Amino acid sequence: MRAVALGGGHGLQVTLGALRRITPDITAVVTVADDGGSSGRLRRELGLLAPGDLRKALAALASDDDGGQLWSRVFEHRFGGTGALAGHAVGNLVLAGLLEVLGDPVEVLDQACRLLGVRGRVLPMSNEPVDIEADVIGLDEDTASVRRIRGQVAVATTPGLVQRIRLHRAGRPGVPPRGCPQAVRAVLEADVVLLGPGSWFTSVLPHLLVPELHEALVQTSAKKVVVLNLVPQPGETAGFSPERHLDVLCEHAPELRADAVIADLDSVPTPDRLGTAAAALGARAHLARIAAAGTPERHDPDALARCLSRALREQPELSSTYPVEGEEDAWR
Amino acid sequence: MRAVALGGGHGLQVTLGALRRITPDITAVVTVADDGGSSGRLRRELGLLAPGDLRKALAALASDDDGGQLWSRVFEHRFGGTGALAGHAVGNLVLAGLLEVLGDPVEVLDQACRLLGVRGRVLPMSNEPVDIEADVIGLDEDTASVRRIRGQVAVATTPGLVQRIRLHRAGRPGVPPRGCPQAVRAVLEADVVLLGPGSWFTSVLPHLLVPELHEALVQTSAKKVVVLNLVPQPGETAGFSPERHLDVLCEHAPELRADAVIADLDSVPTPDRLGTAAAALGARAHLARIAAAGTPERHDPDALARCLSRALREQPELSSTYPVEGEEDAWR
Repeated sequence: MRAVALGGGHGLQVTLGALRRITPDITAVVTVADDGGSSGRLRRELGLLAPGDLRKALAALASDDDGGQLWSRVFEHRFGGTGALAGHAVGNLVLAGLLEVLGDPVEVLDQACRLLGVRGRVLPMSNEPVDIEADVIGLDEDTASVRRIRGQVAVATTPGLVQRIRLHRAGRPGVPPRGCPQAVRAVLEADVVLLGPGSWFTSVLPHLLVPELHEALVQTSAKKVVVLNLVPQPGETAGFSPERHLDVLCEHAPELRADAVIADLDSVPTPDRLGTAAAALGARAHLARIAAAGTPERHDPDALARCLSRALREQPELSSTYPVEGEEDAWR
Repeated sequence: MRAVALGGGHGLQVTLGALRRITPDITAVVTVADDGGSSGRLRRELGLLAPGDLRKALAALASDDDGGQLWSRVFEHRFGGTGALAGHAVGNLVLAGLLEVLGDPVEVLDQACRLLGVRGRVLPMSNEPVDIEADVIGLDEDTASVRRIRGQVAVATTPGLVQRIRLHRAGRPGVPPRGCPQAVRAVLEADVVLLGPGSWFTSVLPHLLVPELHEALVQTSAKKVVVLNLVPQPGETAGFSPERHLDVLCEHAPELRADAVIADLDSVPTPDRLGTAAAALGARAHLARIAAAGTPERHDPDALARCLSRALREQPELSSTYPVEGEEDAWR
């Protein structure tokens, strides 16, 4: 089963962790709009693609053997102290070095996959740095007045309410980013495409705003699964209901259809409304207990894999190898 | 043939480049007293072993296959620009990350060897950071007054005349560094040990001042070969004759004996004096044209390999596989 997971950050790590329990043939397509932290410093200093989300995806798909585990630990290691390197993840620096030497991000990521023993592939959604901007309300006295907020960190942490985002090539407002050709092909050739969970406006929706990637998502015959977040994110989606997440997805990509929406049973106060919002996408909502015990803000990868497997099993063309145990899934 | 090369910096790269033409079984034992450049910044910021000379040795022994060549290019690549990373070699940052994650420098270097496809081994002379200090004359009006100069960079660039160096564990004056046990064993088990070329006081002699390494060099039954520099280094060995290099070696390690001294024919103005200085070490001087054509300050690795091979062939217990061509070697 060829699976493609679109997203960024910790959300994408969750999907990849669940997916690798189901299939070895995984392509991660990763947001590259980050402008904060170690990634942001590298972008500003060297003018490179933001490496942080790419690094996290590599670590999530690293082989279980000694080499894969070692390099994944090294990639995720951050220098401490108070000096010039403090806070930089080693993997970001390695990816930056590879980018400067090789130039082509896809070649860089294929080499990094080899180093970490990744069986699948990690690709950027675009081969060029991307900037994000958002229309945000609630920042002024006049609560309806819309302000334009620029940059991934600013959007992700705005105290206002994000209405809509736009993407453009870094430093070229109005010019849409070009989709990474290999990522576009992976979506077209996939059996399953996953979108989310993750920072909705800054990690999940951006993929829909890369024209070639959007087109591929609309055209592909893959089963499309949307995985919702467990808790709203402070900042960009504070106060968002699960169905509001689907609504903004529709608003950003009206042509997009999906097959399944997966959400945590305990995170959905009004299942009927979610069912309706999913139906508007052409999808069925699958609710199950997929939060990790003890840390309800994090997904349990085993539980997510089981729910995903079951949702896919419902699709007659696909068979999944993951054993389904217990009866914790509720179908709506 | 088990070969061990002791040194640091570009000099060690030369020896390793020549040695790999003769044998695949090479152990590089590397100075770690550097406190300048990218290495110095990492030492000061993170308190780690200086990685620069280790990185150079890894690159010199990198496999010729695609993976080895790629990672050796990436390791040697330096970030440009004017930011916090400017001037850092990517390999130094990778080694720093591995050191922080794994702790043990030998394990770190074994992993780096795997990454670069090194068939031999790269080891530090000591597993702990080392400081160097030198007695230098000629810095005052009274030209005989001795000043103590601290730090590898300061010693390597002093306008005075270095008389003697001492080593101690970083931040612990008077406490000698402990030899890396694997390096000590490699010297004891070697068939051939090479010392030099390189910055004489700061890359070559330091090994003799690590007590366990000195003891191993005295005890080993390996053939010991000293390779002299082509030109005196401005700073630490300005105005030094080839034989003066051997004299200071004897002054720092009076018990050490050698079997061969290799020098460039055109860099030795008084061959007889060199022969006498070599004889004081128990060694025979081998003179040959080993400078690279067009760049007389650099060794030609092929020519050095031929001369080394011929010098070793003179030793009845050893046979070398390197073809000896022409008659450019002069024997004294």
